[in-house]
Amino acid sequence: MACDFIELANKGVQGLQPYQPGKPVEELERELGISNIVKLASNENPLGPSPKALAAIEKVLPELTRYPDGAGFRLRSAIAEQLGVAANQVTLGNGSNDVLELIARAYLTGHSASLYSQHAFAVYPIVTQAIGAQHIVVPAKNWGHDLEAMAAAITEKTRVIFIANPNNPTGTWLTETEVRAFLDQVPERIIVVLDEAYTEYVSEAEFPNGITLLNDYPNLVVTRTFSKAYGLAGLRVGYSVSNPQVADILNRIRQPFNVNMMAQEAAIAALADTDYLRKGVELNQQGMAYLESEFKRLGLSYIPSVGNFVCVDVGRPAGPVDQALLHEGVIVRPVGAYQMPNHLRISIGTMAENQRFIEALEKVLG
Amino acid sequence: MACDFIELANKGVQGLQPYQPGKPVEELERELGISNIVKLASNENPLGPSPKALAAIEKVLPELTRYPDGAGFRLRSAIAEQLGVAANQVTLGNGSNDVLELIARAYLTGHSASLYSQHAFAVYPIVTQAIGAQHIVVPAKNWGHDLEAMAAAITEKTRVIFIANPNNPTGTWLTETEVRAFLDQVPERIIVVLDEAYTEYVSEAEFPNGITLLNDYPNLVVTRTFSKAYGLAGLRVGYSVSNPQVADILNRIRQPFNVNMMAQEAAIAALADTDYLRKGVELNQQGMAYLESEFKRLGLSYIPSVGNFVCVDVGRPAGPVDQALLHEGVIVRPVGAYQMPNHLRISIGTMAENQRFIEALEKVLG
Repeated sequence: MACDFIELANKGVQGLQPYQPGKPVEELERELGISNIVKLASNENPLGPSPKALAAIEKVLPELTRYPDGAGFRLRSAIAEQLGVAANQVTLGNGSNDVLELIARAYLTGHSASLYSQHAFAVYPIVTQAIGAQHIVVPAKNWGHDLEAMAAAITEKTRVIFIANPNNPTGTWLTETEVRAFLDQVPERIIVVLDEAYTEYVSEAEFPNGITLLNDYPNLVVTRTFSKAYGLAGLRVGYSVSNPQVADILNRIRQPFNVNMMAQEAAIAALADTDYLRKGVELNQQGMAYLESEFKRLGLSYIPSVGNFVCVDVGRPAGPVDQALLHEGVIVRPVGAYQMPNHLRISIGTMAENQRFIEALEKVLG
Repeated sequence: MACDFIELANKGVQGLQPYQPGKPVEELERELGISNIVKLASNENPLGPSPKALAAIEKVLPELTRYPDGAGFRLRSAIAEQLGVAANQVTLGNGSNDVLELIARAYLTGHSASLYSQHAFAVYPIVTQAIGAQHIVVPAKNWGHDLEAMAAAITEKTRVIFIANPNNPTGTWLTETEVRAFLDQVPERIIVVLDEAYTEYVSEAEFPNGITLLNDYPNLVVTRTFSKAYGLAGLRVGYSVSNPQVADILNRIRQPFNVNMMAQEAAIAALADTDYLRKGVELNQQGMAYLESEFKRLGLSYIPSVGNFVCVDVGRPAGPVDQALLHEGVIVRPVGAYQMPNHLRISIGTMAENQRFIEALEKVLG
């Protein structure tokens, strides 16, 4: 063939490094020929599926030859009702990843820039790079977002700011006072995305609920997901809440059937399943307390986290430690791509999974 | 609020008219308060789900708190094996809509153009418009693609050409000789998308299999879907087959978890379910023969179609006819947006559904 089809692609796309997901269990089984694997790599809910979500899926299985409701009428209504917003403020996504991408595609160009923090969620640079927009990356402070520095880094070209609260992979968080002080400084023409993927896990009194900020800041877009505390990662469903104009724009660019039928039904059921949510949060608190105490016992420092994951400093390059853990049948997440070469991110699992991890870690660190 | 967030969005996105899906049954129930509705509006498989696909979903339901395999390893392998291509030629999409969008985002910019036919599938203009790229729309010939005119319409700015074979909504098709003659004229630097969403329904001897053309045309991308003959529209899964470089580029821009877990499992099962595929194709042939004979009896002209749908000319503006059919509990698809104001597109249903439609049509046309 005469052409190089990499070179023919848009420059931004050519420069993309795809997101590296947590290794699937079956991939490790294939590669190493081992079984009885524990995966603590993707911040998934270790409880297993909500029975109510399963029942909702079962009910709709006979309909799967039909397209999903492209408007997502009932799911958007259920979200709106629970959050006390209007349905025309809600945009559904194939996971919140989809909504983050829609925002970038709607408001960034090759001539503008997004702004986000060092160590912030990897999807922000990816969706920026895919468009060929510029990246303004602000150094972190104590592993978290330095909002004062971020406000100072805004330029004429800045069109979208991404803030993760709490942040993945660091688990750091921002108070309502901090977020409001930041938003007060941002020109209204700039879209500010407050990514609250892990909000359900946070119990700190000063932690903000982004939804309550929407009335004061029309340029604010709050994103949330059903992949974490709601336990539906396999189905792919997330959403944003924003002013209706932003939602209108995102809905124009959204693929008409971006959220599948089972995901819509399961999400409606999951929203109402407060018991499942509570159990998952409690299990997470117990697991986090256990891991923190074990890290202390092992003399390992970690980044205090309010999410369902925690980053531990293994005191040496984490890559070989990660590889050794894989051979012990434990999948965690190396975060070298986040400029954290000595850390591993551990998702909180069941108590048995957490113990398996600690045993393996202790063995591997020798 | 001080800003207009519509005006702040990229111009291409501002100019978008979202895709208008077929009206969901439950939406019509809400609006008109009627039941016993027949939907022949979205080219869905009327057979209902394949039991093998259902079994595959059931098996994986306990895993739904886990993320899907981002690499889609087993599904891509299964597709590659069935088609006789390499797995690194396959790109998975959240429906083939997703892959069409990935191609546009990877190879179009605000300074280049896509080229497609009048009356062609609505997603081609949408994905072009979302990027702010230019549209080169070539007038149709006998409702189908005029490939000679399309070849003549190529300009220096043309980067992507979309061809639907057969085309939706017209059901027209191109022979292998015609497609090859066209591809021979297209400069290799231009990506040619051969959209084969309905290929499983076509039995004409001269109808090409795009996969067999890939070796001769490295700039060719063949897209297919599990939403039609395979009966998985609710789950969202489609794919493209291309040279590995194009697949590499599409995989860079693809959302890491764009295809959900149930869709991957059901698609693997559906690929192997040749019995389901055959039954659906047979039902389609019977339904098509019935509708054609009824249209003749009613003195209505129609566009001969090789898909699982047919466009009938109701001899007057189709909008009011469509509305009247809705009040009879029959949902079909008006195609005014395709510059076909007097046509309705009818998806082939079960025999009982086809008969319900004909009865309603006869009543409505009076």
